[in-house]
Amino acid sequence: MKFNIALLAGDGIGPEVINEAVKVSDAIAKKFNHEINWTPALTGACAIDAVGVPYPDETHEICMAADAVLFGAIGHPKYDNDPSAPVRPEQGLLLMRKKLGLFANVRPTFTFPSLIDNSPLKRERIEGTDLIFLRELTGGIYFGEKGRKDDGETAFDTCTYTRAEVQRLAKKGFELAMTRSKKLCCVDKANVLETSRLWRETVQAMEKEYPEVTVSYEFVDAVAMRLVQWPNSYDVLITENLFGDILTDEASVISGSMGLMPSASVGEHTSLYEPIHGSYPQATGLNIANPLATVLSAAMMFEDAFGLKEEAEAIRAVVNKSLEQGIVTEDLAGKDAKAYKTSEVGDWLVANL
Amino acid sequence: MKFNIALLAGDGIGPEVINEAVKVSDAIAKKFNHEINWTPALTGACAIDAVGVPYPDETHEICMAADAVLFGAIGHPKYDNDPSAPVRPEQGLLLMRKKLGLFANVRPTFTFPSLIDNSPLKRERIEGTDLIFLRELTGGIYFGEKGRKDDGETAFDTCTYTRAEVQRLAKKGFELAMTRSKKLCCVDKANVLETSRLWRETVQAMEKEYPEVTVSYEFVDAVAMRLVQWPNSYDVLITENLFGDILTDEASVISGSMGLMPSASVGEHTSLYEPIHGSYPQATGLNIANPLATVLSAAMMFEDAFGLKEEAEAIRAVVNKSLEQGIVTEDLAGKDAKAYKTSEVGDWLVANL
Ligand SMILES: CC(C)[C@H](C(=O)O)[C@@H](O)C(=O)O
Ligand SMILES: CC(C)[C@H](C(=O)O)[C@@H](O)C(=O)O
Repeated sequence: MKFNIALLAGDGIGPEVINEAVKVSDAIAKKFNHEINWTPALTGACAIDAVGVPYPDETHEICMAADAVLFGAIGHPKYDNDPSAPVRPEQGLLLMRKKLGLFANVRPTFTFPSLIDNSPLKRERIEGTDLIFLRELTGGIYFGEKGRKDDGETAFDTCTYTRAEVQRLAKKGFELAMTRSKKLCCVDKANVLETSRLWRETVQAMEKEYPEVTVSYEFVDAVAMRLVQWPNSYDVLITENLFGDILTDEASVISGSMGLMPSASVGEHTSLYEPIHGSYPQATGLNIANPLATVLSAAMMFEDAFGLKEEAEAIRAVVNKSLEQGIVTEDLAGKDAKAYKTSEVGDWLVANL
Repeated sequence: MKFNIALLAGDGIGPEVINEAVKVSDAIAKKFNHEINWTPALTGACAIDAVGVPYPDETHEICMAADAVLFGAIGHPKYDNDPSAPVRPEQGLLLMRKKLGLFANVRPTFTFPSLIDNSPLKRERIEGTDLIFLRELTGGIYFGEKGRKDDGETAFDTCTYTRAEVQRLAKKGFELAMTRSKKLCCVDKANVLETSRLWRETVQAMEKEYPEVTVSYEFVDAVAMRLVQWPNSYDVLITENLFGDILTDEASVISGSMGLMPSASVGEHTSLYEPIHGSYPQATGLNIANPLATVLSAAMMFEDAFGLKEEAEAIRAVVNKSLEQGIVTEDLAGKDAKAYKTSEVGDWLVANL
């Protein structure tokens, strides 16, 4: 098979981790007789520096024409202290999500046996954790009308959802649940919010189409608690944009493997794969960042975007092997163990595929 | 001194835990020569059953006339499955907050040495945790305009804040920080929300009035992570209503002492003290619920509402003693240890004050 992949390395350590994911992807493609055509494009702070906007039209066209997008990370400290600056890297992210129609952010949280003791949680609390959040990504309070009134003294944000938006996301949730343990949790705040009541009634109405799926409805505050108490009691969770932002980040730290977690954002036109970590500016250019989350995002891409499960499993297997053998960057290396460089980890993966 | 306290026992285990807090408060009052006049009033499901509304006018008048309100818990399973039922216990809670002007919810999270191993987190992560959230409680998306459009196919909720609302809450935060480690964290989502940008600019403008306080600004998703990773790195946190709902509940499970956490909601007219746990319907009438969170809420009331620090410390001391000596309800009793009844714990506290 032949694939066109848009390559959005972004800022900070983005280019470094992307580089390793490309190496591994190319090696897998070679092994399985595929051909990948990578098209790099600008996004984030580096795009602002180059052309004045964080998600240039040219980048958008490259993404639209691609079979998938592989994304690094964006963000630069020079934008950190002023969230009201007129042009910011995050705006590029939001614009990209909206223009590419990436309505479902898929965020798995699972444990690696060899890393489980890195977790802030006790081993017995997290063993077996294997959950997936589907976060709605193009609606809600992120994209509703917002502004000021009363000479700037009053601010407002509007959270809006249509039934169709909820159905689209929930359908993915039901389908995913059918491929797993058939348990779906709808996270909302239906005791307070009208949008949540729409979510709940919409999901309730869909239950009869999936009679095998057991659906539970939980309030967002209760889920924020139970995620810390019994993360392994969850399987597939669906939720709206802002709740998903908070809960997926909370969930990411419980497994002890945050630096390894991949994600996908799937949509109407294409889908995008990226590590959940940020641009880690302090490490830029040092060749020390952990590339595994990006490599595992590439594995998700092979499986979900191209339907190539064997290729994905081969990547996951070699990643597991590197963890077991301690071929890891400094964030995962034990106190007295050797820390490998970003590129050394990539080289090792390629050599051991 | 003489106090009038409105006693809102509420539903489920509310009356049982309130009963013990009353016993302990009366014993403290006697010991320190105060006189407490308790006025019971209805709220929650029991108020709906009795008079058709969850926060009757009569209850409101009793609260307004009181020096403080001691609150148990509300909620009943018969309302659990239909968050859009026309009359619900939670509406009473929201109405009460609004009508009493309880704009600041004070939520401490701390550890008890004897309970630290109950936490899902590892001991070294939580030792020394002693943080306080100030959650804005009468504004934001809870109280903004909400409804449906397009024949019910579109739902919306509006989050609104005025500068004055932010100032009022932030002032409490700065003042509280001054009495503690002089560290204040403002939690927002200023990279996305206009209300958050108003929060941030308002707090930034107040910094110069409190030059000794070090203020940090963190995004809500980052705080959701760090609360699990390093809860003891926080001290005073201020945030808006919905973020506070999620984060305070998340924070409550990290100490391993959730069943013991008190809270206060302070306002213009009066202030209200309540355990953070719910109405625990399954345990209703069984005399097994843990009364300590309510007893500690009464301690907060003595200290904060009446300025009686010694009385508060006496309550806290006897609670600590009961924990150390294992005079605890079944939720805290070790596998082979005796579990005391709710009322037995209260009796023991009174006898050992
Ligand atoms: C950078 C920010 C706008 C973004 C979000 O809130 O969606 C980020 O936190 C994320 O989760 O991808
Ligand atoms: C019952 C509900 C409306 C309430 C809230 O969200 O404020 C509760 O979760 C709380 O935190 O007191």
